[in-house]
Amino acid sequence: MLSERNKILVESIKRLLRRDATTHLRKIVNKTHAADLSVVFRSLSLSNQQKLFDMIKDTEQKGVLFSELDEDIFSNLIEGIDVDEIVEILEHMPTDDVADIIGQMPKEKSDTILEKMEKEGSEEVEGLLRYGDDTAGGIMVPDFIALKEDITAKEAIESLQKEHLDVEMPFYLYVVDDHGRLVGVSSLRQLVVVKPETPLKQFMTTDVFSVQTGMDQEEVAKIVARYDILAVPVVDGTNRLVGIVTVDDIIDIIREEATKDILKMAGAGEEFIETQSVFKSTRSRLPWLFASCVGGIIAFFIIGRFEGSLSKLAYLAAFIPVIMNMGGNVGTQSSSIVVRGLATGQLNVRDIWSVVFKELSVGFILGTVYGFLIGVVAQFRYDTGALALSVGLSVICSMSVAALLGSMVPMAFARINIDPAVASSPFVTTSVDIISVFFYFEIATTLLGI
Amino acid sequence: MLSERNKILVESIKRLLRRDATTHLRKIVNKTHAADLSVVFRSLSLSNQQKLFDMIKDTEQKGVLFSELDEDIFSNLIEGIDVDEIVEILEHMPTDDVADIIGQMPKEKSDTILEKMEKEGSEEVEGLLRYGDDTAGGIMVPDFIALKEDITAKEAIESLQKEHLDVEMPFYLYVVDDHGRLVGVSSLRQLVVVKPETPLKQFMTTDVFSVQTGMDQEEVAKIVARYDILAVPVVDGTNRLVGIVTVDDIIDIIREEATKDILKMAGAGEEFIETQSVFKSTRSRLPWLFASCVGGIIAFFIIGRFEGSLSKLAYLAAFIPVIMNMGGNVGTQSSSIVVRGLATGQLNVRDIWSVVFKELSVGFILGTVYGFLIGVVAQFRYDTGALALSVGLSVICSMSVAALLGSMVPMAFARINIDPAVASSPFVTTSVDIISVFFYFEIATTLLGI
Repeated sequence: MLSERNKILVESIKRLLRRDATTHLRKIVNKTHAADLSVVFRSLSLSNQQKLFDMIKDTEQKGVLFSELDEDIFSNLIEGIDVDEIVEILEHMPTDDVADIIGQMPKEKSDTILEKMEKEGSEEVEGLLRYGDDTAGGIMVPDFIALKEDITAKEAIESLQKEHLDVEMPFYLYVVDDHGRLVGVSSLRQLVVVKPETPLKQFMTTDVFSVQTGMDQEEVAKIVARYDILAVPVVDGTNRLVGIVTVDDIIDIIREEATKDILKMAGAGEEFIETQSVFKSTRSRLPWLFASCVGGIIAFFIIGRFEGSLSKLAYLAAFIPVIMNMGGNVGTQSSSIVVRGLATGQLNVRDIWSVVFKELSVGFILGTVYGFLIGVVAQFRYDTGALALSVGLSVICSMSVAALLGSMVPMAFARINIDPAVASSPFVTTSVDIISVFFYFEIATTLLGI
Repeated sequence: MLSERNKILVESIKRLLRRDATTHLRKIVNKTHAADLSVVFRSLSLSNQQKLFDMIKDTEQKGVLFSELDEDIFSNLIEGIDVDEIVEILEHMPTDDVADIIGQMPKEKSDTILEKMEKEGSEEVEGLLRYGDDTAGGIMVPDFIALKEDITAKEAIESLQKEHLDVEMPFYLYVVDDHGRLVGVSSLRQLVVVKPETPLKQFMTTDVFSVQTGMDQEEVAKIVARYDILAVPVVDGTNRLVGIVTVDDIIDIIREEATKDILKMAGAGEEFIETQSVFKSTRSRLPWLFASCVGGIIAFFIIGRFEGSLSKLAYLAAFIPVIMNMGGNVGTQSSSIVVRGLATGQLNVRDIWSVVFKELSVGFILGTVYGFLIGVVAQFRYDTGALALSVGLSVICSMSVAALLGSMVPMAFARINIDPAVASSPFVTTSVDIISVFFYFEIATTLLGI
């Protein structure tokens, strides 16, 4: 439904652009959420993008659009926008989004902009730029409510009504000591239930989750998802509260991380590349293919060793694809399950042996089922018992080994802190291919006596 | 770090259980977040699980534990708990979680429990049970703040202080008309900035996103993620406000959906099965393997047709694995990119031709690179120009066709509303295998004149 709505939107806007129906366009553009506009921009030429952009009246909406646009569309678009206008837009945006955007710009441009920004804002942005993009420090916002532990509930309510009206998400009230160190957390609800003169430190929750600025964003996302919280406070090395990470940014991270894992498992790079150039896309996909190419060449030398047997019984070759396929697919199943289980925390590296044993059992059962089936087909086609038996046994071996490697390799990689998503697939599929072919020819030549 | 902490927790608890150090255990159990306890429970025997469960003092914590436990652990655990205690725990839980849990129980048990629950609570739960598990109605909570459009800001603040203290997440104040129909939304912040006597309808935002009870949870998640909102109101067919879906449930959905997609692409079922039995795991993985088995058997009959050529030039067989592999892997890359792009909205079914053309270009370039490389190896090994050329050309064909099918099939499936994640992988890999083998033997027998 969402995509249906966007489709209609894109088509209406294109039609209005062709007709140059400015009044109508202006109305639509200002009524549409910037997140939807960013989708429309993907289908438009740069000049039409600029036209629509200039029609946006609300500076805040321009800001939201800035943070929603794809990286390449954004960098082309801002080429045509006056620096002063950019600065004005950035000053209406949340600091974490500004830092992301500034980080994408070429150095000279970002320096000019930071210089022109108001001092307070640019200092906050530069503060955030110090942290790695993918860390808690890089994704936090410095807008949060921090109250001193000594004030009363009444004073807290008063200060909220006066000072903190512009805070993005005012649901957690953090409590700090005189040095700005995080000591507790409270909520609007707590403030209104206690007696007005109670000091915060008497009723605040002291058991508060926090993360360090340097923590990886994936870890932060896991914590927020695990404990169902809406924001997590970020502290520096001395436990001083420096920002919060909010749940809306966590959603983006969880989706990004899932995308990365899917692409890495398929050996298709890390970033989503379909919106990038053919050249970039090709380059990011070359490496894994090289691993599988080397595997294929090794298989080729192994088969070459059995050339004599093959010239006697040429039909042996006909079973190579099915044996390789069955092994490869079970291996992919096992490694996908284990990689995803490790990523979501449903599997734990400690459980390596129980997981591997279970996968091996599954692989063996599946191997027996399909080994029997494929053996029957072989018997029906060539009517040679020894051949049917060789093929069936090879399928069992190949599928068992594949399930074993498919589960053990990601587990082992995770244990030595190598990302299982990126390392497992090339390694598993390549090894399974080589082992399958080797087993098959060894078994067949032995049983058939050639 | 999170898994590191859990590891230490599990080990301490196991050690204390062996030593029967009840006082110490009681302290740890009551200090630990239920989400962490649920992880600990995975490594414990049922009797130890019961022992720990009985040590939990806080009824609410028991409730959180109920909703965090894996399905099979939960259903074993509640066997040993008194119905009256279960009822008491459920009455302290959010209604959506209760509905989930009741839905998992055997019919007689859930009926007994619903009967024993207080009327108001059980009616809410039964209300939720009417909606499909995976719809907005099934995941919403019926606790929200709805204010009449005619009341003033002052009256709204007063009613918040009196009536709505128990609402889970009080950041959106929904505004309804006399029939309970959703007409707008406001916020605490708006209430305190306007003059106290202003009626809500004068300053509320009338442009409010809402979803229908029957909307698929994946769609709901997309909307919440797209517009960075913390909760989305759910309305029935007549636009009456019946509940809200909050962002913490959305996070779980986004992770689940990513897991489903990953497993479906690998043909490994839909649900994460590693915590389930070997039998269930085997059964969910059989179907896709059957598709690939049939593909392998077709490839086997194709190769069988070239038996004559193979007995003359047995080494032809040696190149089967590398040609199949290269095609299969490019196909997996393309379909993973497209399936994920469609799931996240980064690709749109409308763009089918530009995406397919781009993938085809990438496949052709990669094919040329690796075709050349593998051809050189063939030339080096067998010193037959026609063979090297056949192998190189086959790799190019196989990789181009694979990229073409890998991108076109998911796009086409999405267009006719078949889930691209579940349908693409078996179809693509099987077709690519058959086509690769066929091309290879056709090209080789023609060029080598056998």
